[in-house]
Amino acid sequence: MSAEILAVGTEILLGDIVNTNAQYISKELAKLGIDVYYQTVVGDNPKRLERALYEAFERADIVITTGGMGPTRDDITKEICAKYFEKEFVLDEKAYEMLKSFFEKINKEMTENNIKQVYVPEGSIVMYNHNGTAPGIILEGKGKTLIMLPGPPREMKPMFEEYAIPFFKKKSEYTFVSRVLRVARVGESKTEYMLRDLIDSQTNPTIATYVKNVEAIVRITAKAKSEEEANRLIDPVAEEIYRRFGKSIYAEGETNIQNTVCKKLIEDNITIACAESCTGGLVAAAFTDMPGISSVFKEGAVTYSNEAKMKMLGVKKETLDKYGAVSPETAAEMAEGIAKTSGCEIGVSTTGIAGPGGGTEEKPVGLVYIGFYRNGVVKTKKLNYPGLRETVRARTVDAVFNFIRNELEGIDNGD
Amino acid sequence: MSAEILAVGTEILLGDIVNTNAQYISKELAKLGIDVYYQTVVGDNPKRLERALYEAFERADIVITTGGMGPTRDDITKEICAKYFEKEFVLDEKAYEMLKSFFEKINKEMTENNIKQVYVPEGSIVMYNHNGTAPGIILEGKGKTLIMLPGPPREMKPMFEEYAIPFFKKKSEYTFVSRVLRVARVGESKTEYMLRDLIDSQTNPTIATYVKNVEAIVRITAKAKSEEEANRLIDPVAEEIYRRFGKSIYAEGETNIQNTVCKKLIEDNITIACAESCTGGLVAAAFTDMPGISSVFKEGAVTYSNEAKMKMLGVKKETLDKYGAVSPETAAEMAEGIAKTSGCEIGVSTTGIAGPGGGTEEKPVGLVYIGFYRNGVVKTKKLNYPGLRETVRARTVDAVFNFIRNELEGIDNGD
Repeated sequence: MSAEILAVGTEILLGDIVNTNAQYISKELAKLGIDVYYQTVVGDNPKRLERALYEAFERADIVITTGGMGPTRDDITKEICAKYFEKEFVLDEKAYEMLKSFFEKINKEMTENNIKQVYVPEGSIVMYNHNGTAPGIILEGKGKTLIMLPGPPREMKPMFEEYAIPFFKKKSEYTFVSRVLRVARVGESKTEYMLRDLIDSQTNPTIATYVKNVEAIVRITAKAKSEEEANRLIDPVAEEIYRRFGKSIYAEGETNIQNTVCKKLIEDNITIACAESCTGGLVAAAFTDMPGISSVFKEGAVTYSNEAKMKMLGVKKETLDKYGAVSPETAAEMAEGIAKTSGCEIGVSTTGIAGPGGGTEEKPVGLVYIGFYRNGVVKTKKLNYPGLRETVRARTVDAVFNFIRNELEGIDNGD
Repeated sequence: MSAEILAVGTEILLGDIVNTNAQYISKELAKLGIDVYYQTVVGDNPKRLERALYEAFERADIVITTGGMGPTRDDITKEICAKYFEKEFVLDEKAYEMLKSFFEKINKEMTENNIKQVYVPEGSIVMYNHNGTAPGIILEGKGKTLIMLPGPPREMKPMFEEYAIPFFKKKSEYTFVSRVLRVARVGESKTEYMLRDLIDSQTNPTIATYVKNVEAIVRITAKAKSEEEANRLIDPVAEEIYRRFGKSIYAEGETNIQNTVCKKLIEDNITIACAESCTGGLVAAAFTDMPGISSVFKEGAVTYSNEAKMKMLGVKKETLDKYGAVSPETAAEMAEGIAKTSGCEIGVSTTGIAGPGGGTEEKPVGLVYIGFYRNGVVKTKKLNYPGLRETVRARTVDAVFNFIRNELEGIDNGD
């Protein structure tokens, strides 16, 4: 089975937004064993959309559209697609009720054009939208399958998970099972190098590596008649990869280093607090991204000014005067300070120069110190990430969580 | 003139990377007044690439390819494209010299397969690559133009700027000017509704609306012989739109509500601090995303626990006991507390239930209160955003910055 992803939206063609939906859907389809041969983007133009849709159905068994499902007259995906399948529109009662209560809840007037969204082609499977107003639609006919999804990722993704994935799973006689091993802080070329012999001799399961931010990802995919059989094929390969990477593999599946650390802290009931300068709230935001973290994450201090560092964390004036705010000494006092004032077991800190201004020859943009306090011992680490402000901040957050993970796992963090 | 962007790369179809190249090129072409009607992605497969290329030339005057220009056998873009134009390959001397010195510079051996990159179709305009090994190529013929660019963004973008933009500018007799008006907290359907008569009668300039997070964007685009003339066409339309939306239009051009608020605070030297519960650092992170904010943003407190709320912000135990942490009373004391402890003019706060757990009938997931303190007066606002934890948190941040903007501009924030 092959699929084509067809994004509808002039805003993509104008370069106002990136088509991240295509990436998400491609990845999910790969896991299901469905080949994607084309991704296409077309504007809110009836003729060109129609042409793209017909072309897509010529090339693929399944077409997945995103966007053009909203209330405005530009939103024409449903109309064009219904025409292809020669279907009339009917009002979906459940979608209508959901739309009404959505507007009641946000306390806004439901303008007339919104009603358009709850009309669906007859014979559709309706995918109800719990995060927005436009329902999605699955249509089958002419030997083809069409999945229409709304454009906003926060509506599209949950809908795809709830409806489209089970829909495809039910259809296939084969199961594709993927196991993802996440390798912390080892580059892609080195990861590939360490697995080259396995990759070269792969048939079923297959092994693929790629890099995401600061981690490498190894995906093992097996095709089999049952999940059990697929897992039996995967097990020995995964074992061999674990043997080669050891503790560098920090988790399996869809997660990241932040979530992995947060889960471990919650499980082991280790309390933690953070004090941030250059990351300015991003470390706290990463902790609090995790539901249930409130049992162990007690507080965060964003101490942008020197005054705040002294007042909120007890950093000494002499330390700031002698070594400066961006120094291992300040990072250490920040980490210890937040641990003590919050009464938490662990305190972590960041201080650095995120740029674009503020750099000197001695302390350039990208220089960051992180601090880690636990049980009366404080450690610091110097980082140097050249790049944009955004990059410096994001990489520092990754480094902090990596540091915490290593400490929790007894892995040496270096100097 | 219309263009199609054709990305070549199986890694995009697998969802391993996002096609950000298409966004960059689309945006640049929009500025040049070249319409992009399609973006397509195809894998490293000769037949499908050939089909996609021929289809693209049927639909567009200009085709811009990215990727598939490297040294490996998978890199086939040049071969397929040369076939379309019926051209033979010749060695480009300058590209060859650059390739040799590139390998000398990085101190690596130049393997034989690299030479393939410096063969170009005869009659090409060669775009030399200062950031990698594969040169780009411009080819004209059969009434069509083809621009072939390498895949890595850090090679593609500088090449596009150095060669492709001047190439197109020389060709065009018209200038296209766009003005973007950003409308805060008015939905897309209402925005379109309010502009329907203008949109229906548009010719030059054209008006398009779309939604990005919680704002609506109105883009007015005029085609003219000069920038001045284009602006003269835009002015009365923009004026009319301002008349209808008034102060809801918070900015023009590429920005967002956070940046707009931060700039205003810096300009007017108004100091600010924040106290967060449910947003857990995201409000502070949004402030500190702005370079130079340290002159006015002094500190942030992430007070996840009740203890932290009392200790860091002076929230009263009785308030927490009587009304709970998620209440207007607590939001008010948090905002006042952070303003007073930081010595800042403004204090803002968030407290709410981000979910997925923690909701009750009385206080459901998505219920959030924000607080705003200034000059001895404290205001609060109740929000209710149904949705995922991520959505609740992100929307709350937007609401906070909107609230601040309204206060700074003297716009009523409601109750």
